[in-house]
Amino acid sequence: IETKLPKVGTTIFSVMSQLALEHKAVNLGQGFPDFEPPQGLRDALTRAMNDGRNQYAPMHGTAALRGQIVLKVAQLYGRKLNVDTDITVTSGATEAIFAAIAAVVRTGEEVIVFDPAYDCYEPAIELQGARAVHIPLTLPTFAIDWQRVRDAVTPKTRMIMINSPHNPSGAVLSAADLEELAAIVRHTDIVVLSDEVYEHIVYDGAQHESVLRHPELAERSIVVSSFGKTYHCTGWKVGYAVAPAALSAEFRKVHQYLTFCTFHPAQVAFCEFMASNPEHYLELPAFYQAKRDRFRALLAPSRLKLLDVPGGYFQLVDYTAIRDEDDLAFSRWLVQHGGVAAIPLTPFYERAPGTRLLRLCFAKSDATMEAAAERLCGL
Amino acid sequence: IETKLPKVGTTIFSVMSQLALEHKAVNLGQGFPDFEPPQGLRDALTRAMNDGRNQYAPMHGTAALRGQIVLKVAQLYGRKLNVDTDITVTSGATEAIFAAIAAVVRTGEEVIVFDPAYDCYEPAIELQGARAVHIPLTLPTFAIDWQRVRDAVTPKTRMIMINSPHNPSGAVLSAADLEELAAIVRHTDIVVLSDEVYEHIVYDGAQHESVLRHPELAERSIVVSSFGKTYHCTGWKVGYAVAPAALSAEFRKVHQYLTFCTFHPAQVAFCEFMASNPEHYLELPAFYQAKRDRFRALLAPSRLKLLDVPGGYFQLVDYTAIRDEDDLAFSRWLVQHGGVAAIPLTPFYERAPGTRLLRLCFAKSDATMEAAAERLCGL
Ligand SMILES: CSCCC(=O)C(=O)O
Ligand SMILES: CSCCC(=O)C(=O)O
Repeated sequence: IETKLPKVGTTIFSVMSQLALEHKAVNLGQGFPDFEPPQGLRDALTRAMNDGRNQYAPMHGTAALRGQIVLKVAQLYGRKLNVDTDITVTSGATEAIFAAIAAVVRTGEEVIVFDPAYDCYEPAIELQGARAVHIPLTLPTFAIDWQRVRDAVTPKTRMIMINSPHNPSGAVLSAADLEELAAIVRHTDIVVLSDEVYEHIVYDGAQHESVLRHPELAERSIVVSSFGKTYHCTGWKVGYAVAPAALSAEFRKVHQYLTFCTFHPAQVAFCEFMASNPEHYLELPAFYQAKRDRFRALLAPSRLKLLDVPGGYFQLVDYTAIRDEDDLAFSRWLVQHGGVAAIPLTPFYERAPGTRLLRLCFAKSDATMEAAAERLCGL
Repeated sequence: IETKLPKVGTTIFSVMSQLALEHKAVNLGQGFPDFEPPQGLRDALTRAMNDGRNQYAPMHGTAALRGQIVLKVAQLYGRKLNVDTDITVTSGATEAIFAAIAAVVRTGEEVIVFDPAYDCYEPAIELQGARAVHIPLTLPTFAIDWQRVRDAVTPKTRMIMINSPHNPSGAVLSAADLEELAAIVRHTDIVVLSDEVYEHIVYDGAQHESVLRHPELAERSIVVSSFGKTYHCTGWKVGYAVAPAALSAEFRKVHQYLTFCTFHPAQVAFCEFMASNPEHYLELPAFYQAKRDRFRALLAPSRLKLLDVPGGYFQLVDYTAIRDEDDLAFSRWLVQHGGVAAIPLTPFYERAPGTRLLRLCFAKSDATMEAAAERLCGL
């Protein structure tokens, strides 16, 4: 059988998790916590199962969970969502991203993505018969050069994908960035797909500039978030998409036939937990900032150069002082001989710029961070 | 925004579940049990959550769960699968069907489907820019007319989708049917997509003729099954796809970017439950046959004519004696004035043949069946 996705191999996240296992390396690769979701959340899920919530959930998610999302979005971003039309619960943010692209993008159209980009964007675009137009973020801060975006827009441009806090760099968009974006899409029919799965993980007192804060952008955007990233349960695979009614309707047409609905007991559990623990996501920045700062302190004696981390739970490090080789080679060497699994940046690029950077996940317990730091400081 | 799926509205299953709620009707529409999954399975899920299985599962499913599927397929169908390459766990059978179509079918190609067909097939085909070629099943037994299939095959035919036991009719394919199919696809590059979500629900001592029993077909097929249908937890949304290595590799390329992986604790729970309760699916035919027979006995005094039910958990009934109107109109009348929600067959057809048939789900407790029967016998 001839492949429809000739460029796609196994995702770097699976490759590195596998290598980490084989070499008994400390796994700072794939982005997941090595600690557990709150016991109260797990207990709520058990109660939901024992309370008869084991059959199909409503196609776009339980009304109660959508209600909690309405409250959160009003509180944090000052936007009033319609609970019936604007929110769709999905089987992880990955499903939401795929459904958004499949619902909006047609054969022959173009989607602007910023490199380095999370690796599920491009295959989803290609499967629509469309083309990803890659614009590199400006190093070393991974900022968007808006002039390059203006130059890249064509009559075929159907979508612009943004991601803040950014994976892998942790860069965050500012209110000024959103203004630039709004000016570009105004008077066009370009849809914005905003991947905000790390929305609650922004540091140093900054606020997350959600597209949902920007009324004009929000009217033409699909915003994707993740319960897994926020509640430390990436393996539960529950996310959601927010979009105005007409866009949501198109999104749901695809979602309906992609997965139909999402694991029901978890929806009940998230709803109950959000209602009784509204402080959880408010405390998340401090929780992860302590981890970030601890990890950076542990790595200070190493020969790694640490880039700034404004958001997310990844630390980029420049390893030039240890070995001057490309990041694919170095990450393999590191997992085999250094005992630490990390993610190279090259797979996030159409044309990798040859940086000497690796991504390390610090959503980890103190013990894991210490074990990794000890190995990294010995290099 | 212009729609990519002009023919798609809200699925009839959601529409009817909603109407059932509004009119306090007994819901025999959407196909789900109104009883619970085994307590042991729910307890195993709780244990998995409390045992640290809350982060990403492996992309193609846990090795242990795939191992259980290997054992089952060997025991029931005599086929030896490769645990590493042949099985992918998905977020429900719906995801598996979408991923199979997206992985194999290209723009301009044709997919043969048999009407009435489960309503997620066609939108998935359309989103590939391909065309569904509809062949009506022969009434009243919903059999495949193989001559019509031979006539429908063109050089553009990329896939043939079969479904046994069949939704909505309960018809099952015979070994002779599989031979006919094998003769048609031999020396072509047509892929068979076999939806076998009701594989364990076949009645009157018959055996399920899985494509996996047929070595030649199995070499070119993607076979989809569902844990939700087998373990009474449709809302858990776990299914899987079986295909030979090369086809699985293409399937996984899409699955990887559609959902990446599936709710981890449920995978642990299904694995544990399958290992310790291997009799569960062996006892399923008798379990559902008792329900089928009970339901038919309860409906015997009604003016409904009951069609045969060789498999699955749906009863088709001819309602002509009650009202001579089309099934869309009758199903709305029935939910509003008869107090029972059922599924009309028209949405399963490209060109509905004007039958006077409704689908009633009998995966229900005695009390539910009795309440529905009382209402239906009063009409
Ligand atoms: C779905 S595996 C990748 C997880 C993740 O978000 C990351 O590591 O970037
Ligand atoms: C995914 S909703 C439909 C459930 C089902 O299998 C059916 O009712 O046919």
